[in-house]
Amino acid sequence: MERSHRRFSHRRFKIAVRLLSSSSSSAVPNKPPHLLTLADLSPQQIESLLQSAIELKSACRTTNLSLPKDQRKSYASGHPVDQSLTGKSIAIMFTKRSTRTRVASETSVATLGGHPIFLSPSDIQLGVNESLYDTAKVVSSMVDGIMARVGAHDEVETLAANSTVPVVNALSARYHPTQILADLQTMLEIYPASRTSRSASLLAPLAGLKVAWVGDSNNILNDMLVAYPRLGINLSVATPKGPNYQRDEVVWGTMQDGLHAMTKNPTDGVTQGIVTWSNDPAEAVRDADIIVTDTWISMGDEATKEQRLRDFAGFQVTEELARRGGAKPDWKFMHCLPRKGDEVDDQVFYSDRSVVFPEAENRKWTIMAIFDRMFGRWQL
Amino acid sequence: MERSHRRFSHRRFKIAVRLLSSSSSSAVPNKPPHLLTLADLSPQQIESLLQSAIELKSACRTTNLSLPKDQRKSYASGHPVDQSLTGKSIAIMFTKRSTRTRVASETSVATLGGHPIFLSPSDIQLGVNESLYDTAKVVSSMVDGIMARVGAHDEVETLAANSTVPVVNALSARYHPTQILADLQTMLEIYPASRTSRSASLLAPLAGLKVAWVGDSNNILNDMLVAYPRLGINLSVATPKGPNYQRDEVVWGTMQDGLHAMTKNPTDGVTQGIVTWSNDPAEAVRDADIIVTDTWISMGDEATKEQRLRDFAGFQVTEELARRGGAKPDWKFMHCLPRKGDEVDDQVFYSDRSVVFPEAENRKWTIMAIFDRMFGRWQL
Amino acid sequence: MERSHRRFSHRRFKIAVRLLSSSSSSAVPNKPPHLLTLADLSPQQIESLLQSAIELKSACRTTNLSLPKDQRKSYASGHPVDQSLTGKSIAIMFTKRSTRTRVASETSVATLGGHPIFLSPSDIQLGVNESLYDTAKVVSSMVDGIMARVGAHDEVETLAANSTVPVVNALSARYHPTQILADLQTMLEIYPASRTSRSASLLAPLAGLKVAWVGDSNNILNDMLVAYPRLGINLSVATPKGPNYQRDEVVWGTMQDGLHAMTKNPTDGVTQGIVTWSNDPAEAVRDADIIVTDTWISMGDEATKEQRLRDFAGFQVTEELARRGGAKPDWKFMHCLPRKGDEVDDQVFYSDRSVVFPEAENRKWTIMAIFDRMFGRWQL
Repeated sequence: MERSHRRFSHRRFKIAVRLLSSSSSSAVPNKPPHLLTLADLSPQQIESLLQSAIELKSACRTTNLSLPKDQRKSYASGHPVDQSLTGKSIAIMFTKRSTRTRVASETSVATLGGHPIFLSPSDIQLGVNESLYDTAKVVSSMVDGIMARVGAHDEVETLAANSTVPVVNALSARYHPTQILADLQTMLEIYPASRTSRSASLLAPLAGLKVAWVGDSNNILNDMLVAYPRLGINLSVATPKGPNYQRDEVVWGTMQDGLHAMTKNPTDGVTQGIVTWSNDPAEAVRDADIIVTDTWISMGDEATKEQRLRDFAGFQVTEELARRGGAKPDWKFMHCLPRKGDEVDDQVFYSDRSVVFPEAENRKWTIMAIFDRMFGRWQL
Repeated sequence: MERSHRRFSHRRFKIAVRLLSSSSSSAVPNKPPHLLTLADLSPQQIESLLQSAIELKSACRTTNLSLPKDQRKSYASGHPVDQSLTGKSIAIMFTKRSTRTRVASETSVATLGGHPIFLSPSDIQLGVNESLYDTAKVVSSMVDGIMARVGAHDEVETLAANSTVPVVNALSARYHPTQILADLQTMLEIYPASRTSRSASLLAPLAGLKVAWVGDSNNILNDMLVAYPRLGINLSVATPKGPNYQRDEVVWGTMQDGLHAMTKNPTDGVTQGIVTWSNDPAEAVRDADIIVTDTWISMGDEATKEQRLRDFAGFQVTEELARRGGAKPDWKFMHCLPRKGDEVDDQVFYSDRSVVFPEAENRKWTIMAIFDRMFGRWQL
Repeated sequence: MERSHRRFSHRRFKIAVRLLSSSSSSAVPNKPPHLLTLADLSPQQIESLLQSAIELKSACRTTNLSLPKDQRKSYASGHPVDQSLTGKSIAIMFTKRSTRTRVASETSVATLGGHPIFLSPSDIQLGVNESLYDTAKVVSSMVDGIMARVGAHDEVETLAANSTVPVVNALSARYHPTQILADLQTMLEIYPASRTSRSASLLAPLAGLKVAWVGDSNNILNDMLVAYPRLGINLSVATPKGPNYQRDEVVWGTMQDGLHAMTKNPTDGVTQGIVTWSNDPAEAVRDADIIVTDTWISMGDEATKEQRLRDFAGFQVTEELARRGGAKPDWKFMHCLPRKGDEVDDQVFYSDRSVVFPEAENRKWTIMAIFDRMFGRWQL
């Protein structure tokens, strides 16, 4: 029923586009940019966004009250960063709860001088009270940007297709681009550029790293797949056996298209990363620099919890698994949070290997970089 | 029980007024203005608010990023409009959801430099956890204005009577003044002033128009009734037969009082609009310039949905109805949204006739004009 | 189960502290201040906060639109008070609803130039979806301050212990420091300093007053206990008989520790207030300057409502009770609101004796003073 409803919206879209184009003025207006997955971005655009995120983090830290007074900077404007959202309102539109993404998004808007409006699941039920098309038209006529956390990925696609302002995918069933940008910023903090290679690109230290994903076949993994190989990062995946944990063929095709396009237009001589996929966690973590996982029981999976726990037997990230599989001695651990106990034990999660809290904080700086570019400047 | 509770509040009100007046200083403080229905406004005040709304819309569009860069204006202050709500907090207090009104209100406050506080139904249950009188006293002592979406209209009356700051009715069971202001702004965009009559009033192009309301006897219609005839707009109403769709006698009396007052103080020679009321949609749309409707099933009507669908048989707005009834050839369609499918078909709703999306956007500019005047300046 | 979960968090805390300290730089960062109860503050700090609250209230009133135009002040910056939260985001994190505290907190942040993020019970379930420790780490890495309304008091203690930004207790099962600061500001308005004693401390007029608490053994009473005697205010308590209304021994010990510390370091020659406790409302109100109570049925008490109403028989604050007990002729009435009918009758609640509405408004000014100091300056 939901699917047929969406088709209905699309049909209506065509009718209305005619209306709007017939009444448009002679000046060609700018089209808003959208960010629905990292597949939308070139490696250069990813690098540029990460450069911004790093600069925003560094600038904002200069005013941190935890610094001794004589190490703090003050700014004539009162602000360490450009107020590119001055006078702008941004809708933070979530059809499912996501506190971390919400706090990162709201604080980012505020730091850039704008006003965030949080529309919770009880405020907005996309496609329920009115069509997604109508919601996109109305909300986008009143705000300057939309950060949308949706269910099915085509919901955010429909929003973007019909919005007059930029739309950022805060999380969909298929993709989670802002999380992977935060992961990349965190990896750049773990593996900073060497001093001797200043001329190299910001992302150079990431080329050749091996990231092991031990977990579900989900939106986090999907955005890794469409981004990491193009940055030269190797990705070894282990998911459980069974039909629920297969690769998403749409994502797989998008990944291959992206790699193919790179081959035709080689950039900076980056060697594409290699993707391997198995059902064996020990095999996946071999030689891994970083092991990443996520909860096994996402929102909506509660009904099948018992079955899923059985499916994921042996997938918990532990020191023992890493040793047995042969991860690099100084392997690091990442997790998008919130963490449940099953997928990683306390010893790893709260160890020196774990960069989960800097990773969480970097959600804010990468989202701020995206908002500055997309909502503040309409350019990526 | 709800009704007796309100009476109880009123009794307490008298006690407390004594307390407050006995402790007031010698300086006579200004009384806050309130806007509960368009019946509170003279035609000149309505015109002045619409003039502001048009100016705010025009000014804010100059910074729109959809404009090519060389057509955009920049402002020394960073803001295209006067920041009349600087340092002010406005309570957006809703006892029922109303996303459109909420987004229009929050963005308006932010654009004017203020801070909106959205108090949802789960935050505020007017008259449930404490008396409406107590809520009015406490909330108004902490904020600079209240935008209230209530149930029964006397709830917003009680709020206003006991608030120390301006109260705007965002929607009550009886009235919906901000919607009708948005409709008027939209009509001025459809029928702009001719170049040869610059000396005439802003509202001159509306005089003599015929608006057909084909739908429920509700708060939207009620605010049309108390406003349109005074502006020279003819209003022809068709509602279903039966006791649930009769005119609201309080509203009808208020409309007649307003027209009578105009007769005694004639202004600018405006000929009062004529109101007709029938149960026949085809008759209502005869010679109509604009056909307006609303959902047949509002919040709270779900239980009686089947009966209501039968009552409204033949009321769907379609090309066929307009042709059969004899609407003007270039008739336009308006709807306050969200739209359900019953009351208007897709062909009309998504056609060139339909101005529903500009109408929705104008919610923002008219609400911004109201907030600027009432919360920012305490004058209408 | 809840308790064991918290212990679990503490264990993890120790692991993580090791991680963080090992990666800290050589510069010693400032530690954030926290305010969990008035027991955390010296009498001098309480006085200083109240001085700020009085100044903030006075400054903000100069721009009030209720003032005649020639009595209003305008400010070059547009703001009557220092914008100490410019560029800062403050999490207003509530695990239970508390509209009054929320509105006071949000408006305070906005008045000081910051951005409040309200995280409702449906956004944040402390310790449910993830451990309190993880929440403290993540949220505090993204915001500049946390105002937390929690259940058990050790929840806010855990938040503070692991937060990198200041934490203010907005209300816990044990303490309610911001309410008592508002009560103190209200008492200073009732009993202003005499003109002849300008050299004396701001709090001098409060020394020797008698406050009667007629009600539950709750968080409001507890913060009075740890604050009032140190300020020279006498406190006479009447609670019902029975195990549910006994004194909180942790609070009692804290109160005694505070008084003992004062004895060793006498300040300004303040005579410590005397605390008496009985089960007789009439005895409690004897010679009282102020009678204070609170609802008998707080959130969570609904199931035992009938039993509680029986327990509190004879505890309703009335003129008759005050006369019979022998309160001072001009006794005043205070209540933290929202009020239910049981604990005080209409005659008292809406009389000249009642200062409940100024008391509610002072929530805002005292909270603003706290936020300015703690979130804006990291010093108390």
